[in-house]
Amino acid sequence: MALKKKPVNGMRDILPEEAYLRDYVTNVIKETYRSFGFTPIETPLLEEIGNLSNDQGGENEKLIFKVLKRGEKLDLSGDVREEDIVDYGIRYDLTVPLSRFFANNENDLKKPFKALQIGPVFRADRPQKGRYREFTQCDIDIIGEPSYLAECELITATSKALSALSFKGFKIIINDRRLLTGMAKYAGFPDDGHTKLFIILDKLDKIGLSGVRDELLESGFSKDSIEKYLSLFEALSGKEDVKEALLILEEKMGDSFPKDAGDDLSRISKIVQSEDVKEADFRLVFDPTLVRGMGYYTGPVFEIRIEELSISCGGGGRYDNMVGLFSGHPTPACGFSIGFERIILLLKERGFVIPGDAKKIAILLDKGLSEDELMEAYKEAAKLRKEGNTVLVERLQKNKKFQKEILTNEGYSEVIEKWQSR
Amino acid sequence: MALKKKPVNGMRDILPEEAYLRDYVTNVIKETYRSFGFTPIETPLLEEIGNLSNDQGGENEKLIFKVLKRGEKLDLSGDVREEDIVDYGIRYDLTVPLSRFFANNENDLKKPFKALQIGPVFRADRPQKGRYREFTQCDIDIIGEPSYLAECELITATSKALSALSFKGFKIIINDRRLLTGMAKYAGFPDDGHTKLFIILDKLDKIGLSGVRDELLESGFSKDSIEKYLSLFEALSGKEDVKEALLILEEKMGDSFPKDAGDDLSRISKIVQSEDVKEADFRLVFDPTLVRGMGYYTGPVFEIRIEELSISCGGGGRYDNMVGLFSGHPTPACGFSIGFERIILLLKERGFVIPGDAKKIAILLDKGLSEDELMEAYKEAAKLRKEGNTVLVERLQKNKKFQKEILTNEGYSEVIEKWQSR
Repeated sequence: MALKKKPVNGMRDILPEEAYLRDYVTNVIKETYRSFGFTPIETPLLEEIGNLSNDQGGENEKLIFKVLKRGEKLDLSGDVREEDIVDYGIRYDLTVPLSRFFANNENDLKKPFKALQIGPVFRADRPQKGRYREFTQCDIDIIGEPSYLAECELITATSKALSALSFKGFKIIINDRRLLTGMAKYAGFPDDGHTKLFIILDKLDKIGLSGVRDELLESGFSKDSIEKYLSLFEALSGKEDVKEALLILEEKMGDSFPKDAGDDLSRISKIVQSEDVKEADFRLVFDPTLVRGMGYYTGPVFEIRIEELSISCGGGGRYDNMVGLFSGHPTPACGFSIGFERIILLLKERGFVIPGDAKKIAILLDKGLSEDELMEAYKEAAKLRKEGNTVLVERLQKNKKFQKEILTNEGYSEVIEKWQSR
Repeated sequence: MALKKKPVNGMRDILPEEAYLRDYVTNVIKETYRSFGFTPIETPLLEEIGNLSNDQGGENEKLIFKVLKRGEKLDLSGDVREEDIVDYGIRYDLTVPLSRFFANNENDLKKPFKALQIGPVFRADRPQKGRYREFTQCDIDIIGEPSYLAECELITATSKALSALSFKGFKIIINDRRLLTGMAKYAGFPDDGHTKLFIILDKLDKIGLSGVRDELLESGFSKDSIEKYLSLFEALSGKEDVKEALLILEEKMGDSFPKDAGDDLSRISKIVQSEDVKEADFRLVFDPTLVRGMGYYTGPVFEIRIEELSISCGGGGRYDNMVGLFSGHPTPACGFSIGFERIILLLKERGFVIPGDAKKIAILLDKGLSEDELMEAYKEAAKLRKEGNTVLVERLQKNKKFQKEILTNEGYSEVIEKWQSR
């Protein structure tokens, strides 16, 4: 029987150095979020396959790992269809499980409910460098708060968590689904063309205004609409300040300007960037091209940008319709997810050192030690441990020099050798 | 489309109060184990189905959740056999993934390798009260240390972790697979009958000596062997002290006594219970009927018994043959697993209070607050948070009394109301 050493395709083994960093980052994030009153929850890794394939998850629904039925429920005779032999799926995000969780436990939860969830999710994506089929997500959500107070909390707490992890000078870019829709309507695009329009718009930072223009033309949108639409983006070019950008938009769009979205964004911007409120060195920046892929967003959307990475290091937004699909009644909700794996990658690349680590001492035992001498060594280890040190006890190896080198690499700053008395 | 609110059968939603406790327990266990030089690792939740179905996992192999192949690899035409449509399985324990992990990363790991792994495992068991199909395991293992030093470390570290979680006066019961085999040989049972013999012996605390005698007779074992065998247990009855029990066994068994196992157990007993070594209030107790189900154990086996629960709260032992199945060369190994879910259950039942929690303050905002007043409230929250408090900001609700009751239940000891100035 040949057993395979490698992890399954696209998943990976995490070695001690990274695992230790992940534990540290997890704890810092959890502590920060808890200080804002977010409360931890856990949801199962498996969900009913029908809950996962509900059209809210967009492309992710094609990437579900599906679980075979078991025992008598599994019938492989005759014509076999996938939907008949599968009952569960492994979750592809934490938002669907959270929505189900809230609907299931609504009566036992404080409202508004502030949830904190960190855990692995799975997508049967084509494996790529730096992208895995199992990865950790790290979400906070506020369920039941309809106003922009939720967005203020999410952005303040998340920026503080990043700050506690040593990140400085990052940006959180913001937009609003209602603005996106308003601008499309203003330019005269038909309602059923918005999804396509936003997918193309999303590429603006890669292909530029002229690239977007070309693709829109190719897709058969009217030339007038395209020019009217792109003139908005030209006017906004380089205007990162939320208030300034919104004034420009309002002036250009007139009555088509969605005032509710504008008010929300400018209030959020003012509060989260106020000197005594913000607990991190970051800027909130307006980006009219920010779409965020998920179909379920309904209001403000936001994304973290850290300088070294051109891509997003997390994001979120308001999704007022999703929870109701489970609970059966309208329930406003808003969430922010930190890109845990990218944060880990960045910290590793920066050579981040975990602060305040215990002193590490190794006690090495010669093979010839008597039982009494061994006992003394263990007593010493226990004593040093009580004093707050990490103490490793192991056999002295033949190649002592090599053993000590490895211990030094592992951060052991003191080595005590125990030889048999002669 | 009907979405289901309930978690899948046999799995569960974990609400904030328990999730917070689980985080606390996880951190205490991790910190304790780290202070002994154990290093955290993470392994994927999915494994090749062939790695999981390798005959080492005993009954658990029947309980695997299997993952359907995807895309072109999935062929549902013609005669469909389960093994052709499944490629991965969800892990049912942490020991198989650890063994694979070690073989895969051997060159990058310090040896002996001291691993610490906490994570969910899955078994498609019939759901029962208090038993779930997804549950957390919490394992430490030492790979590459052939002597009883490994057992001493595992028992000392695990008892200290339990002590740090407020457990006192518990027992760790110990036995040795070599003793079990030696006793069976001494009594003249055929080698191929040992597995059956041990399964019946394992029931001794439930059905008593006479019950065991009846079942052994029914199974067709020789009457002479049975009486010779049971006379050993009669002689050991009530002898919990390891040294004393071993002396009795050695005297009765003579040359059949496995001296290596006896030496190991008495050394382990002496070291882990020495006053200055042990960092917990526990007793190591000999139990000749302790079998531990898994087929892979080869030497000492042990189990945690906490008074309120008659069942095991964790256990482990030496498994010197398993890692070699992956690595291709003999590799000694020994592990200890804390029954995480049972520990959580016990702490909940005892009304355990998490020590040293931050002060919790709620700031409640009236709907009529001006933007400037809102800003002031947020500034105050940030200030209080910097001072080390947990600060929740939320809207004042219509039923203020009810809102405050809930906040009190959630541990908020101070409530600040912010009303609009008049």
